Amino acid sequence: MNGNRFGRLFQVTTYGESHGEAMGVTVSGVPAGVELDQQAIQAQLDRRKPGQSMITTSRGEPDEVTINSGIQDGYTTGTPIGMVIQNKDARSGKYEPYVTAPRPSHGDYTYSAKFGTRNWGGGGRSSARETVNWVAAGAVAEQVLDASPYDIEIKAHVNRIGDVEAGPVTFEEILEQSEENDVRCADPEAAAEMQELIEEYQREGDSIGGSIYFECRGVPRGLGAPRFDSFPARLGQAMFSIPATTAVEYGLGKEASAAAGKDRNEDWTFDDGESFDHVVSEAGDPVPVGNDHGGLQGGITTGEPIYGEATWHAPTSIPKKQRSADWETGEEKEVQVVGRHDPVLPPRAVPVVEAMLTLTVLDFMLLAGRINPDRVDGAVGEYDTEYHPSSPRNE
Amino acid sequence: MNGNRFGRLFQVTTYGESHGEAMGVTVSGVPAGVELDQQAIQAQLDRRKPGQSMITTSRGEPDEVTINSGIQDGYTTGTPIGMVIQNKDARSGKYEPYVTAPRPSHGDYTYSAKFGTRNWGGGGRSSARETVNWVAAGAVAEQVLDASPYDIEIKAHVNRIGDVEAGPVTFEEILEQSEENDVRCADPEAAAEMQELIEEYQREGDSIGGSIYFECRGVPRGLGAPRFDSFPARLGQAMFSIPATTAVEYGLGKEASAAAGKDRNEDWTFDDGESFDHVVSEAGDPVPVGNDHGGLQGGITTGEPIYGEATWHAPTSIPKKQRSADWETGEEKEVQVVGRHDPVLPPRAVPVVEAMLTLTVLDFMLLAGRINPDRVDGAVGEYDTEYHPSSPRNE
Amino acid sequence: MNGNRFGRLFQVTTYGESHGEAMGVTVSGVPAGVELDQQAIQAQLDRRKPGQSMITTSRGEPDEVTINSGIQDGYTTGTPIGMVIQNKDARSGKYEPYVTAPRPSHGDYTYSAKFGTRNWGGGGRSSARETVNWVAAGAVAEQVLDASPYDIEIKAHVNRIGDVEAGPVTFEEILEQSEENDVRCADPEAAAEMQELIEEYQREGDSIGGSIYFECRGVPRGLGAPRFDSFPARLGQAMFSIPATTAVEYGLGKEASAAAGKDRNEDWTFDDGESFDHVVSEAGDPVPVGNDHGGLQGGITTGEPIYGEATWHAPTSIPKKQRSADWETGEEKEVQVVGRHDPVLPPRAVPVVEAMLTLTVLDFMLLAGRINPDRVDGAVGEYDTEYHPSSPRNE
Amino acid sequence: MNGNRFGRLFQVTTYGESHGEAMGVTVSGVPAGVELDQQAIQAQLDRRKPGQSMITTSRGEPDEVTINSGIQDGYTTGTPIGMVIQNKDARSGKYEPYVTAPRPSHGDYTYSAKFGTRNWGGGGRSSARETVNWVAAGAVAEQVLDASPYDIEIKAHVNRIGDVEAGPVTFEEILEQSEENDVRCADPEAAAEMQELIEEYQREGDSIGGSIYFECRGVPRGLGAPRFDSFPARLGQAMFSIPATTAVEYGLGKEASAAAGKDRNEDWTFDDGESFDHVVSEAGDPVPVGNDHGGLQGGITTGEPIYGEATWHAPTSIPKKQRSADWETGEEKEVQVVGRHDPVLPPRAVPVVEAMLTLTVLDFMLLAGRINPDRVDGAVGEYDTEYHPSSPRNE
Repeated sequence: MNGNRFGRLFQVTTYGESHGEAMGVTVSGVPAGVELDQQAIQAQLDRRKPGQSMITTSRGEPDEVTINSGIQDGYTTGTPIGMVIQNKDARSGKYEPYVTAPRPSHGDYTYSAKFGTRNWGGGGRSSARETVNWVAAGAVAEQVLDASPYDIEIKAHVNRIGDVEAGPVTFEEILEQSEENDVRCADPEAAAEMQELIEEYQREGDSIGGSIYFECRGVPRGLGAPRFDSFPARLGQAMFSIPATTAVEYGLGKEASAAAGKDRNEDWTFDDGESFDHVVSEAGDPVPVGNDHGGLQGGITTGEPIYGEATWHAPTSIPKKQRSADWETGEEKEVQVVGRHDPVLPPRAVPVVEAMLTLTVLDFMLLAGRINPDRVDGAVGEYDTEYHPSSPRNE
Repeated sequence: MNGNRFGRLFQVTTYGESHGEAMGVTVSGVPAGVELDQQAIQAQLDRRKPGQSMITTSRGEPDEVTINSGIQDGYTTGTPIGMVIQNKDARSGKYEPYVTAPRPSHGDYTYSAKFGTRNWGGGGRSSARETVNWVAAGAVAEQVLDASPYDIEIKAHVNRIGDVEAGPVTFEEILEQSEENDVRCADPEAAAEMQELIEEYQREGDSIGGSIYFECRGVPRGLGAPRFDSFPARLGQAMFSIPATTAVEYGLGKEASAAAGKDRNEDWTFDDGESFDHVVSEAGDPVPVGNDHGGLQGGITTGEPIYGEATWHAPTSIPKKQRSADWETGEEKEVQVVGRHDPVLPPRAVPVVEAMLTLTVLDFMLLAGRINPDRVDGAVGEYDTEYHPSSPRNE
Repeated sequence: MNGNRFGRLFQVTTYGESHGEAMGVTVSGVPAGVELDQQAIQAQLDRRKPGQSMITTSRGEPDEVTINSGIQDGYTTGTPIGMVIQNKDARSGKYEPYVTAPRPSHGDYTYSAKFGTRNWGGGGRSSARETVNWVAAGAVAEQVLDASPYDIEIKAHVNRIGDVEAGPVTFEEILEQSEENDVRCADPEAAAEMQELIEEYQREGDSIGGSIYFECRGVPRGLGAPRFDSFPARLGQAMFSIPATTAVEYGLGKEASAAAGKDRNEDWTFDDGESFDHVVSEAGDPVPVGNDHGGLQGGITTGEPIYGEATWHAPTSIPKKQRSADWETGEEKEVQVVGRHDPVLPPRAVPVVEAMLTLTVLDFMLLAGRINPDRVDGAVGEYDTEYHPSSPRNE
Repeated sequence: MNGNRFGRLFQVTTYGESHGEAMGVTVSGVPAGVELDQQAIQAQLDRRKPGQSMITTSRGEPDEVTINSGIQDGYTTGTPIGMVIQNKDARSGKYEPYVTAPRPSHGDYTYSAKFGTRNWGGGGRSSARETVNWVAAGAVAEQVLDASPYDIEIKAHVNRIGDVEAGPVTFEEILEQSEENDVRCADPEAAAEMQELIEEYQREGDSIGGSIYFECRGVPRGLGAPRFDSFPARLGQAMFSIPATTAVEYGLGKEASAAAGKDRNEDWTFDDGESFDHVVSEAGDPVPVGNDHGGLQGGITTGEPIYGEATWHAPTSIPKKQRSADWETGEEKEVQVVGRHDPVLPPRAVPVVEAMLTLTVLDFMLLAGRINPDRVDGAVGEYDTEYHPSSPRNE
């Protein structure tokens, strides 16, 4: 309702401003019994951290996560996990000129228009700093999925920066190669070109847009609750929550407008045993012969890989001189954004995209009864015959 | 949670299968005091109705709406409006061959995979017939907006079919010209080409994809609750709920990936009195010099027109022979979809897109306190000093 | 948010006014695969129906339910079940005098104060007629529970009318005897006294209050999501939704205020095999030695019977002359409520209480993963190894 | 869904275990522009704090609140307020004996039954320590109400301990006298008797139950969204969320069962200018002649004081020896709860009851458009004509 919560059974509630005291995230709906690795959460935060390379902002945030609740002897207890990440390197003073003279194309003006005020330091609540909360929550979700019997893999990479496009890569290449370079592009040659392009824009005091390709493998068939909570609808909400997203596509995406039905339609055949959500039945299990549908038919997962693409516009914080209008003085004036900023968004958005995908997939897994909402090891049958209530500590 | 409800303060709950008894929609959260024109609801349903032209399915549904509740003497009462639309021309028999041999690229298989069963006649709950409920609800929402002090205009038109693209058109042209042809394209020449192209695919027993451009004018600044309930996030959910949507874009959309920050960023100037949500203040009101941002900054409306584009893949129901796998017999077999179907989706999707936009905008208007959730004429101050409880009947 | 929806995974959305066209209820979140007996739904509606005895209103409503969706060949399909019950015997004319002169202690004034208008015929949306929707939804929920492996019994009876109180009765007596008399009290002697008392008030043009005792057996341990969605919290919401409820109690209820900790506390012993949610483990399963706790500890079910009591004030519609204030004329005046009304609420509220209990229990069963939200026969393990997607029609 | 969130537009999300690192609460939906007094929040926490008198637990928690977000220059910004309260005096060791041998009548067993594990130190998540979060959130809500044009007063006092009952007191006496004694009872003589009784139970290593009377004045007419989100339904959920609540009553409460309709019904007269939500109209404003209805008719507020009572059973933590069953060893054994505990709940529950009332009232005020969800000073009309976006800092 008021924007600070994501998810239905797996609920993520966040707070925090870019230059406030701390960022915070409460993860409610974590099934009990998951051995939670705090270092793995930290590792995801480090992937998103500022200052990790020359093409990211130089703001120095250690982004160390503190876990305040929800764990006993290293295992989740089914109660909410409260996490806090202190803001260490906030320098709000730089933002004073913009208090009443909004920076071009930021959220400065709209936040003030909505609330009659805003936290103006570093963009306040509108800053992408908020996504540190999402990545922390996503890292918890990832561990819940890993503790389930499902073998789900979620990965994204940068496939376009400006006019440089990555060549075709396999999912395995994305898994193995995308983290090898600062751009997070699985095509090494394109990555080098992208890096060069970004540095060029950076030198000119400018910034540039780009896209991310994402894919999930191993997501079982039958997830998604049509019509308004369909898988693409909820994932669309998740993706468009990420700041500066301007387009989201699934499967053929925008190119589907030019495809004929007979070409895009995919016949059904029988499973050769290699589909992602294999079903053993006497007669066999129908699988589609292709995957132009991006793993989604009728708003529900088919068991085939879910894939798509999202686009980000260029960062709005650029050192170039721009013009603003000061609503206190009534005067137009020149402004220059002197903070520390990213020249491009997709490289640091990769872990954020993966986090939102993970949160969305897990939420649907819980909603479809694929993972028990109370306990990761629980199933209907087990409750009655095998359940023995005890603390993992005593096992 | 389970997919049959849209909206937060303005809640739309639907039921119905393509070949079931009836479609039904409950609209809850309608402020009281709106004079509701049933004919206007019917007029919107007629725009979406099958059989309205040569390029739509020939299924003969009158789509007459019955209103069961929520109105007194022609005015809304603040209680839910229950509407029912009977299904008159269902011919389920044609679908028997597909009960266990799913039609290619439909929702047949995924619904069965999820629920272990499905209503198979005409696609059941997965059918686009469901959108008749959305259009009915959207027509109620439209009347609520019209009864408010805001002057909001929402319109969409078809801007691409296959490889035929509409030329540049103004919003006024979209308002005036898009309903002049069966394709619902505001560019008459492109419309003629599109019509020809569609008929060609139709003759070949095939189908084709396309896109819709949408725009909202007069939406006030400050709507949208970042971060997860931002305006683009919730509109993204709405758009991807529409069956067969493969891409959603705002503002520059996918092209934003190639734009530099300095080019996309828009300076602020002072309002010349022509902006859409004018504010009188001593110092004046900042407005952006352009609208590449599509009316959205920081996930919140700027007051500038909100616009974007959505893409639909080709209808999956085509008369051409295709292959399926029967999970009862274990045999692959040839199938031919012999129902009555649309050769292209966008022309009939235009009123659906407009309905989802209207529902989204109204919901945000209520959430932001722009329209009183209890009564369309109510404001905080009025309650205490001017309010006189009476039935409109007695005024 | 706006009051017309109950439940989280099992969602009931309603509409309808006492003298409107029809009552309607959409039940969303019904797992697929339940053989739905429409006659059983009708039977529950008949239990609540007006005119069933001398101590109920004489309004003649057949309350025939029409099912518009959600069923295929007699089985639920996982899609929403839309039901409509036409209003046949509405006589709104009688209510004209109260349009601007509210009836004492009804919802007339508060609805008008909230919405600035109201549907005034027969109390409109504030009428207990609305509960026909709840009973229909509860009857669906009952069949879902019956189709699960759990053996859950839910029953209520009238335990107090005015100053006449029922003697102690067993759950078996409540099951067997409460429907034997018009008062729905399981103690036959008290029932006779209650009947007499009610008729006395009826003769005098007056009405009287009373209470209902309710109990659920077989509800498994572990239901309820503390803290704000605890079992007692959500059941409290459900019970206080029933019109004219003035008190809700669990276990010892109000008497708990006078009990010492050592007396109310219940030691743990080992299960003798007769507890309600038996668990086989080597060491045995702890069970409490008594049930003053009413089946609820820490907001979660213990597996022991859940029981409690709710109280209703006397019906506000009485034939006696009363005084009102007409806000149109500014004059106080005598009013006489001449409609057809119940002299007491609990006898007809028994099926309503049972319905709200059933809806609450089922919702928690789904939320705790005890019943699969998609399919009544589904469990985590089964999906992967035994699932065979087919229509029940073909089995 | 999973129990850690309360409220719809004013959303409170909590985490924390009794002996965990810290308690935390995120308050989302706070309108912007409220000058937030952190000391006032602390003062409410101090009212609830352990160790404040001889009849409370001696656990030494300073309960100092840290605010991490949502404030700029002392004013709320419309973004979520994250608060953290460290746990300082946790001594989990004492609870080791109960890890697999549940304490009688606590939540030990049910939490383990639900989640297959639990945080066992000090009761973990089931502890009343959690209510520190609620009181912090309630203190924020109180300040939002105070910043509105409404003059709402909310107060509770202890009206029964064991068999000692308070005599009749006025609301003014409750306001002035209830905080004068450790029991928080507005009747000084009864308070002394209650104190004596509590100490007696305390000396005997036992505990005792009791009740709280609560009242809200100044709540405007028209709040509450029938039927399932009626004011009593949502307040019932709030009250039954408080641990150990066994009964909730409104108005005449349980005694309503013995009242005749003609006695309980209240005629309407015209406002003499002293009603709580005065309406100026030509013809005058109807008000009921009494308030046996407890400020609620048809589930909606009448503008008269809302009042009721809630009952708590005796604290389950008592030093007396009791028996438990150890599910690890399979042996029954004697247990003795040696932590630091309250001998009675109502005195410390008074601020918790007030907090839940405040949260409920504010949520309904926002939902009914009485307070603008975005900004405390905002109304529909104001947006368009008087709004000037600026930081309070600059005013």
